[in-house]
Amino acid sequence: MEEAVKQADRIILGIDPGTNIMGYGILGVYGGKPRMIAMGLIELTKLGDHYLRLGRIYERVAMLVDQYCPDELAIEAPFFGKNVQSMLKLGRAQGVAMAAALSRQVPITEYEPRKIKLAITGNGAASKEQVCEMLKRILSIPQEALLPKLDATDALAAALCHFYESAKPIKTKSSGSWKDFIARNPDKIKKGL
Amino acid sequence: MEEAVKQADRIILGIDPGTNIMGYGILGVYGGKPRMIAMGLIELTKLGDHYLRLGRIYERVAMLVDQYCPDELAIEAPFFGKNVQSMLKLGRAQGVAMAAALSRQVPITEYEPRKIKLAITGNGAASKEQVCEMLKRILSIPQEALLPKLDATDALAAALCHFYESAKPIKTKSSGSWKDFIARNPDKIKKGL
Repeated sequence: MEEAVKQADRIILGIDPGTNIMGYGILGVYGGKPRMIAMGLIELTKLGDHYLRLGRIYERVAMLVDQYCPDELAIEAPFFGKNVQSMLKLGRAQGVAMAAALSRQVPITEYEPRKIKLAITGNGAASKEQVCEMLKRILSIPQEALLPKLDATDALAAALCHFYESAKPIKTKSSGSWKDFIARNPDKIKKGL
Repeated sequence: MEEAVKQADRIILGIDPGTNIMGYGILGVYGGKPRMIAMGLIELTKLGDHYLRLGRIYERVAMLVDQYCPDELAIEAPFFGKNVQSMLKLGRAQGVAMAAALSRQVPITEYEPRKIKLAITGNGAASKEQVCEMLKRILSIPQEALLPKLDATDALAAALCHFYESAKPIKTKSSGSWKDFIARNPDKIKKGL
């Protein structure tokens, strides 16, 4: 196992499964800080047959789980699409990726593309380039490491989105009240005004 | 391994994967004749969580493959549905079932419901009861064995459809010509009229 994996407090595998290409990103958390361990792309277009593609997705996700021992899987999962046929195919690609994680007891959380973009850039309609730019800054990824794998940034973004989401404090029943917020966050109050 | 499995020349696993219920049927071929070995239902509704359901489908299909060592998987796979959301969910259920077969090198063939009904009853719009009636006759299944598992007949029908389809002679380029048909099937010509 890689040193970066051994030293991490937590590993998040991000996956963006498609029928033509599958992106993945491995995020390590070290003392509460996220860092990219790996990212990559699996080209499926050269595999003509639909089942060969599904088989390849299963194999590669299973391999990633075995190699990086992720604690969680974050998956980019669009819930709406152009037509039922493409959604069925996408569902199958998602299904086999999920099966590989489920067969190894890795819990799954899925995020809609809009939610991921919002978490990373603050804008749910951000472009791929904007997401990429933010990932570079947040995770200090050099440009040359990112460029050839641009399509894998969605997967890495899913992993980072999951890191942010799971780090959020759990909402209590009274979390909507300002009074409670102030009571829970005394340091956030400017004094002496 | 069961005797029925050991003695079969060929085993076909039929699966009808859904998000609420999954049906399966095991068909053995003995000297060119199909016979039912087993059929069953996996209730998924009691598993509230979507991932638990997908995980259960994977586990059970993998278990069926390990138990019956099928040579092929035939899957009932509708290509059209009411809406994109339900197709995505159905795609996932199909995907995990396929992944379980693919991970064990079992080749997959999928059939649309219409095609299965046509192969079994001669009518692509046949009712569930009509398909069931034909299965009972063709495979000599006693009524009492079928009734509690009525929803699994679609899966068994998929397996039987695959048996018929794979037993069909491979079409040659000239198969459309009557002259060739007569040349290949001299016994089908009524003589002396």
